[in-house]
Amino acid sequence: MKNDEKFTIGWVNAAEKRTHVPTLLKQFGDILPTPLSERVNLDAYADKLINSADIAIANVNGKNVGCIVLYANDTEDWRSYCPLLSVLPTHQGKGIGSSLTSRAISLARQRGMRSMQLETEVDNRSAQKLYRSFGFNNLKSDGHKLLMLKELIDPFASSLMTPIEQHPVLVARLNLDVDLRVKRDDLYPSPGGGSKARKIKYIMRDLIAQGHDVLVTNGGPQSNHARASAVACSLLGIDCHLVLVIEKGVQYKETGNLLLMRMSGATIEFCEKDQLSERMDQAIKSYENKGRSPFYVWGGGHSVAGTIAYVEAAKETQLQCSDWIPDYLVVASGTGTTQAGLTIGYENQPTRIIGISVARDAVRGTQVIHDSIKSYFDHSELDAPHLTVDFRDEWTCGGYEKTNPTLLEIVQQSARSGLIVDPTYSGKALLGMLELIKRRVIRTGSKVLFWHTGGLMNLQASELTGRSVSL
Amino acid sequence: MKNDEKFTIGWVNAAEKRTHVPTLLKQFGDILPTPLSERVNLDAYADKLINSADIAIANVNGKNVGCIVLYANDTEDWRSYCPLLSVLPTHQGKGIGSSLTSRAISLARQRGMRSMQLETEVDNRSAQKLYRSFGFNNLKSDGHKLLMLKELIDPFASSLMTPIEQHPVLVARLNLDVDLRVKRDDLYPSPGGGSKARKIKYIMRDLIAQGHDVLVTNGGPQSNHARASAVACSLLGIDCHLVLVIEKGVQYKETGNLLLMRMSGATIEFCEKDQLSERMDQAIKSYENKGRSPFYVWGGGHSVAGTIAYVEAAKETQLQCSDWIPDYLVVASGTGTTQAGLTIGYENQPTRIIGISVARDAVRGTQVIHDSIKSYFDHSELDAPHLTVDFRDEWTCGGYEKTNPTLLEIVQQSARSGLIVDPTYSGKALLGMLELIKRRVIRTGSKVLFWHTGGLMNLQASELTGRSVSL
Repeated sequence: MKNDEKFTIGWVNAAEKRTHVPTLLKQFGDILPTPLSERVNLDAYADKLINSADIAIANVNGKNVGCIVLYANDTEDWRSYCPLLSVLPTHQGKGIGSSLTSRAISLARQRGMRSMQLETEVDNRSAQKLYRSFGFNNLKSDGHKLLMLKELIDPFASSLMTPIEQHPVLVARLNLDVDLRVKRDDLYPSPGGGSKARKIKYIMRDLIAQGHDVLVTNGGPQSNHARASAVACSLLGIDCHLVLVIEKGVQYKETGNLLLMRMSGATIEFCEKDQLSERMDQAIKSYENKGRSPFYVWGGGHSVAGTIAYVEAAKETQLQCSDWIPDYLVVASGTGTTQAGLTIGYENQPTRIIGISVARDAVRGTQVIHDSIKSYFDHSELDAPHLTVDFRDEWTCGGYEKTNPTLLEIVQQSARSGLIVDPTYSGKALLGMLELIKRRVIRTGSKVLFWHTGGLMNLQASELTGRSVSL
Repeated sequence: MKNDEKFTIGWVNAAEKRTHVPTLLKQFGDILPTPLSERVNLDAYADKLINSADIAIANVNGKNVGCIVLYANDTEDWRSYCPLLSVLPTHQGKGIGSSLTSRAISLARQRGMRSMQLETEVDNRSAQKLYRSFGFNNLKSDGHKLLMLKELIDPFASSLMTPIEQHPVLVARLNLDVDLRVKRDDLYPSPGGGSKARKIKYIMRDLIAQGHDVLVTNGGPQSNHARASAVACSLLGIDCHLVLVIEKGVQYKETGNLLLMRMSGATIEFCEKDQLSERMDQAIKSYENKGRSPFYVWGGGHSVAGTIAYVEAAKETQLQCSDWIPDYLVVASGTGTTQAGLTIGYENQPTRIIGISVARDAVRGTQVIHDSIKSYFDHSELDAPHLTVDFRDEWTCGGYEKTNPTLLEIVQQSARSGLIVDPTYSGKALLGMLELIKRRVIRTGSKVLFWHTGGLMNLQASELTGRSVSL
């Protein structure tokens, strides 16, 4: 390799894998200290890689000169693994191995993996030096092979934590006699933010782990889950199919979440409520008929993955403010996994989790949350402890997306104090919290964490928008 | 104090200060180990507090039982200082001092302060124990007084950093032969996000430091700066007055940024372009006539504070990826302080900063950025080094908020790859970056950082939204 030859690195996409992988294995597997063909059946190994691995190739003037293989699909332990890194001898020492490693680490991080492992020969000092420069440490050795480990997630890493803020102006304006903090999950780092953006990352991990290649889900035209799904799929290059329920004869504007769904390139079909299950079945079958592997997620993202996301969110919060343990945590509660996850995550804390229903009645809402808690423990093969579910349906304002003047006034008051909530979700939770403080159900002087689940896109599509201004 | 007596803590607002402060000083200053009246002139001291300090009061059954005073207005060193913490002897030992300290720390953090200092008597062991429990360390002592210091900002603290991401799907879809990363300042943690949300925090520090009580600024109905101003002001309980320029006869919809401006409670007036400067003058005078102290910020937030924000943003980025120094940094360039700050912040790095104009021609744009750089060094009382400004005006698409089909197609392509840009700002920067890669002005294989300045709210108000959907 001449010094002025530049290399480029790219990930092999799903369509190219079947043609590229067998060639790559022959080209790079056989230049390893122990040739790959001596260790594994190359055809079977190729199949495994095609189904479960990511592969990046380094290229110089159209020639493949190096590659790295990454498994980032372990959603039990979130451990990623690099079984192969190889650079042609003619192109070594130019930083290609280093760049490939860097890319693999970034992708694993992006997929939410918590650690990366790789194996090298005990006497391959130069490889070990490279890995150590990236923070890999020796894990164990059998005398020939050395297993090395790098932790990917610093529990204090930036993009994984949403801020916890005090809002003294809000407290003063609303005359609250509690020590209030706000968990700003509305600022979860994804366009539109919010709790569904947090959950979809965990759902996508399951999709990837199970080898699916298209997400099929449903919702309304302003579903945060459907928007978060569309954005996450486009980010990962996975197809997204949305069945959105609308009412016949009503005109829906492409704004808020619906705009982001369309722009993200999701396939969108609209239907009436009574056609939904048929349309979902048709969509699933149609992908299967094309040889695709669709992953079906319930509307709202209701799944064990959603609960896991919020068990983790609870732990994130406890890490962030270990010196301030809330007496109460108040959160908008819809399909139930947010409240289920928080209830589990705060199991060993004195914190009481209060869910404010955005639509459901207390009997159904409470049952669904208990079911989600049970599913979580079943999934983890643990015995479910008895956990109290406090789900209150007094502030649904008549149902999903319904409002009343008191609610709209609270949304306004809150925005005037720097906390922008929407009338569909977090506005109702705020209204409920204020009432509970007033009634002393939430004790005067107690520590209260208001969990802001998001809603900026709902707000952009709500009845509060759209007034006309002119001179 | 009986054990079941609950205390509440609240900050004294600006209006209440004049009546409360003198009383508080008498009540709490004289129960200190060295009475305050023996150390200072109480009247002069009260004036100082009223003008520059924040005061929180602990209250039990309507009686003031403790208070804390905080100076969080030092924008040179961002050092905050607590000159007074006092709790009535009858109410000590109940956690009131601890709660007051916790509140002061939170407010100082919220104001962006980097450290907090406080003084205690050398022999006041119980106070020192309290402060140490909050992470204060001994700084210095004169034998009688002990100065203690707590660092407030961890450079790796979560909410201050926006993610840096790789976008393999975008790279593959657009066929980019560079090592691309994206600085997601669009996810800056404030509703609507983006570069103006980052800048306004620094502008508000100046406003507070200079003792103003109302922000007067201007912009268009979709100005990100005006929206970020309105949100920041409402968060801090400071009045915001916006003069928004619109065209006569055109109907503007209250959506996107304009919706957030109204909801945040800003006073909004609309005028035509040729009335702007007169209207701004009138607004300023009208506040002055009412005894208020208005702070005038140029439209777009063009100010030294904006440049400082981006010098800091550059440093944040360097901290985040110290092992990956970009060869090029591409950013949308409007009023110039973003590019000026990044240019200064990357002064000692090999990184070339390329600004893509969203409206201005290269001659004017370049000059304004040079002026901003000069202002920054003048402000810092440093000699300005010669810095290269690379500002390109080929992708303005005819001017501010103008688009063309190529731009709209890139915005779409990008969204389909998980990166949502808007056609007014970051879409133009992306278009320019792609062209520069194609022309090899940006070298093949080089490291490129695309700085996403935001625009989600602009997108919600753009021509891409508003289509109608029905069954």
